[in-house]
Amino acid sequence: MTSSELQVCLDACLRCLQACEHCASACLSEPDVGMMVACIRLDRDCADACTFTARLLMRGSELHAEACRVCAEACDRCAAECGRHGHEHCQACARACRACADACRALAA
Amino acid sequence: MTSSELQVCLDACLRCLQACEHCASACLSEPDVGMMVACIRLDRDCADACTFTARLLMRGSELHAEACRVCAEACDRCAAECGRHGHEHCQACARACRACADACRALAA
Amino acid sequence: MTSSELQVCLDACLRCLQACEHCASACLSEPDVGMMVACIRLDRDCADACTFTARLLMRGSELHAEACRVCAEACDRCAAECGRHGHEHCQACARACRACADACRALAA
Amino acid sequence: MTSSELQVCLDACLRCLQACEHCASACLSEPDVGMMVACIRLDRDCADACTFTARLLMRGSELHAEACRVCAEACDRCAAECGRHGHEHCQACARACRACADACRALAA
Repeated sequence: MTSSELQVCLDACLRCLQACEHCASACLSEPDVGMMVACIRLDRDCADACTFTARLLMRGSELHAEACRVCAEACDRCAAECGRHGHEHCQACARACRACADACRALAA
Repeated sequence: MTSSELQVCLDACLRCLQACEHCASACLSEPDVGMMVACIRLDRDCADACTFTARLLMRGSELHAEACRVCAEACDRCAAECGRHGHEHCQACARACRACADACRALAA
Repeated sequence: MTSSELQVCLDACLRCLQACEHCASACLSEPDVGMMVACIRLDRDCADACTFTARLLMRGSELHAEACRVCAEACDRCAAECGRHGHEHCQACARACRACADACRALAA
Repeated sequence: MTSSELQVCLDACLRCLQACEHCASACLSEPDVGMMVACIRLDRDCADACTFTARLLMRGSELHAEACRVCAEACDRCAAECGRHGHEHCQACARACRACADACRALAA
């Protein structure tokens, strides 16, 4: 792992965290909030996984690969659900999740 | 998974979190802090893993098994390092980490 | 501050965290989720405030009083909203929030 | 508060979080770790305050002003300690803390 690869993954985690927090909050403001329940749940879990992983990357933790693997799994699930919804915040979140999953898998490899 | 198994694991995570936070802080107050560096690092990672896992358990997340696995790994590493030191806070932390690793593995299975 | 007062506050924070995580998750499963939006939002903020405060208390941080003040504010708002709903998880959360607000104010004083 | 002011503060929180995590980890690797104990403690608290605040900003929480105030206090204390040390990571952290404190105070005003 180079410091450049680490920084790419860290940036992807922080962008995904922001997208998930924003998406959860925006989903709660949608008139069809009853349709967004799974999205809100997965946004929350993914935001927590991104926070956990980003902080381990920032401190150069020896556990970063394990964190990246669980983060990629959280991102995959969140991207699959967000991608099913037409709201712009959901589509943006799905893209951020896919980018983060890719970066986490690359770093954990 | 029963709700009782979940609560056992959650309690183990919270006890381990408290032990790790206390151990890191107490290690920083030891005269031989230079010997405690690895312990402090692993305490921090383990505390973050326990927090992440505990909150997913509290909310009944579908990702709890993945979180439990990374938490067990963090606990194993922290227990191994803490167990090498005679300070009471290190020994107590090692015990809490081992109990949490066991509970996380049982729940993730 | 005695270590007993600190432990009382820490326990209140952890109970409130668990109540808030559970309430947010249960609100998302209610048929009337559209009525629970404010509750879910405040549960999330309060859970984060409790986590932040609990960890500072665990490590004996010099910033614990400041954390307790913001936690008490988060608890007050969450208790006021949860208290308006008849769901058992909301009523239990309101009680945990009030107890945590009291403990945080006592410790910060 | 405009969304531009919010983004400025959020970016400052994330930069400060990264600086604090890096500084804590780098301090633990210094030969004079015994001199860096206060710095490590404050880095940890400040990183937690920045994480808490950043996530509330991301979700547009009504509690963001209260979070910004405690974050500014954490940043002030961390900047004062880091500023006393000549290590490059301490000086960079002090700068990030001061910028974050300013942004948090501006947003909370």
